[in-house]
Amino acid sequence: MKKVLSIAAMLLMTCSAFAQQALWGGASVESPVVNEDGTVTFRYKAPKAVKVTVSGDFLPTQKMTFNMEGQERTFDVPGVAELKEGQFGIWEYTTDFKVAPEMYTYTFNVDGNTVIDNNNMWVNRDVSSLTSAFIVPGERADLYTIQDVPHGTVSKVWYESATAGFDRRLSVYTPAGYNPTAKTRYPVLYVLHGIGGDEDAWIAQGRATQILDNLIAQGKAKPMIVVFTNGNISQEAAPGENSTGYTRPTMQLPQTMEGTFETAFPEIVKFIDSNYKTIAKKQSRAICGLSMGGFHTLYISLNYPDMFGYSGMFSAAIGVSDPSISPIYQDFDKKLETYFSKKPALLWIGCGDTDFLIQANRDFVKKLQDNNYPHEYLENGGGHIWRNWRIYFTEFVPKLFK
Amino acid sequence: MKKVLSIAAMLLMTCSAFAQQALWGGASVESPVVNEDGTVTFRYKAPKAVKVTVSGDFLPTQKMTFNMEGQERTFDVPGVAELKEGQFGIWEYTTDFKVAPEMYTYTFNVDGNTVIDNNNMWVNRDVSSLTSAFIVPGERADLYTIQDVPHGTVSKVWYESATAGFDRRLSVYTPAGYNPTAKTRYPVLYVLHGIGGDEDAWIAQGRATQILDNLIAQGKAKPMIVVFTNGNISQEAAPGENSTGYTRPTMQLPQTMEGTFETAFPEIVKFIDSNYKTIAKKQSRAICGLSMGGFHTLYISLNYPDMFGYSGMFSAAIGVSDPSISPIYQDFDKKLETYFSKKPALLWIGCGDTDFLIQANRDFVKKLQDNNYPHEYLENGGGHIWRNWRIYFTEFVPKLFK
Repeated sequence: MKKVLSIAAMLLMTCSAFAQQALWGGASVESPVVNEDGTVTFRYKAPKAVKVTVSGDFLPTQKMTFNMEGQERTFDVPGVAELKEGQFGIWEYTTDFKVAPEMYTYTFNVDGNTVIDNNNMWVNRDVSSLTSAFIVPGERADLYTIQDVPHGTVSKVWYESATAGFDRRLSVYTPAGYNPTAKTRYPVLYVLHGIGGDEDAWIAQGRATQILDNLIAQGKAKPMIVVFTNGNISQEAAPGENSTGYTRPTMQLPQTMEGTFETAFPEIVKFIDSNYKTIAKKQSRAICGLSMGGFHTLYISLNYPDMFGYSGMFSAAIGVSDPSISPIYQDFDKKLETYFSKKPALLWIGCGDTDFLIQANRDFVKKLQDNNYPHEYLENGGGHIWRNWRIYFTEFVPKLFK
Repeated sequence: MKKVLSIAAMLLMTCSAFAQQALWGGASVESPVVNEDGTVTFRYKAPKAVKVTVSGDFLPTQKMTFNMEGQERTFDVPGVAELKEGQFGIWEYTTDFKVAPEMYTYTFNVDGNTVIDNNNMWVNRDVSSLTSAFIVPGERADLYTIQDVPHGTVSKVWYESATAGFDRRLSVYTPAGYNPTAKTRYPVLYVLHGIGGDEDAWIAQGRATQILDNLIAQGKAKPMIVVFTNGNISQEAAPGENSTGYTRPTMQLPQTMEGTFETAFPEIVKFIDSNYKTIAKKQSRAICGLSMGGFHTLYISLNYPDMFGYSGMFSAAIGVSDPSISPIYQDFDKKLETYFSKKPALLWIGCGDTDFLIQANRDFVKKLQDNNYPHEYLENGGGHIWRNWRIYFTEFVPKLFK
């Protein structure tokens, strides 16, 4: 096999021998493409394939009926569209609608095999599946992208967990201008992920650090330290960053919802307060989380009512706790009463009206109303998806530490 | 469509609606699998495919002849193996040899379309191609994985570049025990990537922070601050972290090898010295880089002979500079003489004997020998690949600051 190559071209092999493919791997396929008319085109090369589809949250959702504990319940799940085969075995689909500004994830399915878009460099890992991502710029989506504003520092930090018996990793955001040797101290927000997530989830899919940079630059949020925990107490860190390597994560790790993480949470707060310029007071401390992280947020807030002035529950997995598992889940109503007797600055709840957890969240909100417990509730469209969690984060953060 | 689902299972949708696929996406395919006998098995589902191959640096290399400036030159490139189709359209290949402990990257090719392994959560981005990765543990590879040792902190930090006219991102490693408010100061190593890389390259594919944690814990390397720069001066940061978003990177960005980055390097050193507990002296400062980064290392060292006591050139792109482009590339021999007259502690050079840059590196080493300029040279097997760069990094780091 012979090739004519310049030194410069050869240099492109620096990143790895595979960069060759980028050099002479044949016509490259452009996908996804946000077109000028607002539609989006997806392409995938599969010369011998019989059927290629694309599924993602950019498509209108479809209804799916689930049987949950004997009850039939219908939820929205992402829609699916068929690609048509064109020249050179390149399949293509263009939306017949303008795709609204937002961050989206999608996958292709080639004859029953779900794959990412190999022409899109933006890959997200979720539980044990990979998805491709893209952003249609404008409006709210501009909060999710890097703007010409001062940027905070994002650090991967290890803390010693006496409970777990080993060191565990946190992601820590310090706002632009943060100086560990200066006098200025900052309030702290703790942000919790859902099942299958880890300390990277809110940064990768939640675009939390971009949202923080942008909201702070716009003066809509106070400069704050933000800590992204790993809620899988049996795990040191995200795949690849723990001693088990990149083994495919099981869908639910042990010890995620049995009280240990919630019980041990003060050791994280103590670590942060002793290593960062924090204001170590309840009214300068907030916690929020999505799904399982909303569940954690609720029980951490109730069991440590003097710790957090602000709590945010996003599509929270309410009503799945079993009091017999851990004291953390016992005496719920009594703990709720104590929590509110200590006058928290804010309990904020957000859930989508097609989320499979909507009823549990409505029931909890009703309980709060019946007891005249002060709270804020946002019910919007959509289901149990990252788009909503980015929206809730964007709603919640500006309300903090005011 | 009806499904029976538990709340716990529904919770697995937290990470995104796509996690569904992990829930009921059909039989999941396990790939890659390191077998007990030391062989490795790869699987890919493609029911309608005609030909599926796997290519990666775990396979014996194959020869490829290139015509470079009229000269025919032969280099090793990754080998290719065919998968055989089995049940359910799942293709499979098992090596007929033990795969040695190492970190490897690979891709599948399905009827002419190069794809990653959709069952492997470990995805690397390189230039504008994606690869899947795995580690066969043991021996040297154990340096590349997380061990039960103290871990340093890895931060994504933005500095103001007067030269570029915008803020740019660095990755900064501070060793375990680093305390910004304590008296202890540390030497600093600056680590540079190749063309197509960025401030993430050495961390993702170089496994540099794992290597540092492990070498420091073993007492083989001094605790040090390590700065991973972005050598594409026209770029703020890695894709997704710059204002252009995740647009597919061009294979060579502008202003990578025309002197600007090298000229501007002192502004990075100044930023680090004023924001970290560094020992701001030549003998406590080192710089190294791979390929283009080795080229940068050479010219930064020669043009700022009082800045770095230690310099490491890994598969350096020597001999591609054009003096007419920038003063940085002029008076090479004179600058070399000045550099050595100031007695650097170490100039270390490493190159693989099948690297397309081997001749240029041998020529440079001969020039050093002819002039009795002190240096260390390692010529090992293999080509222009990450495996060698991890090895050179592991060789170079223990020699620093002694």
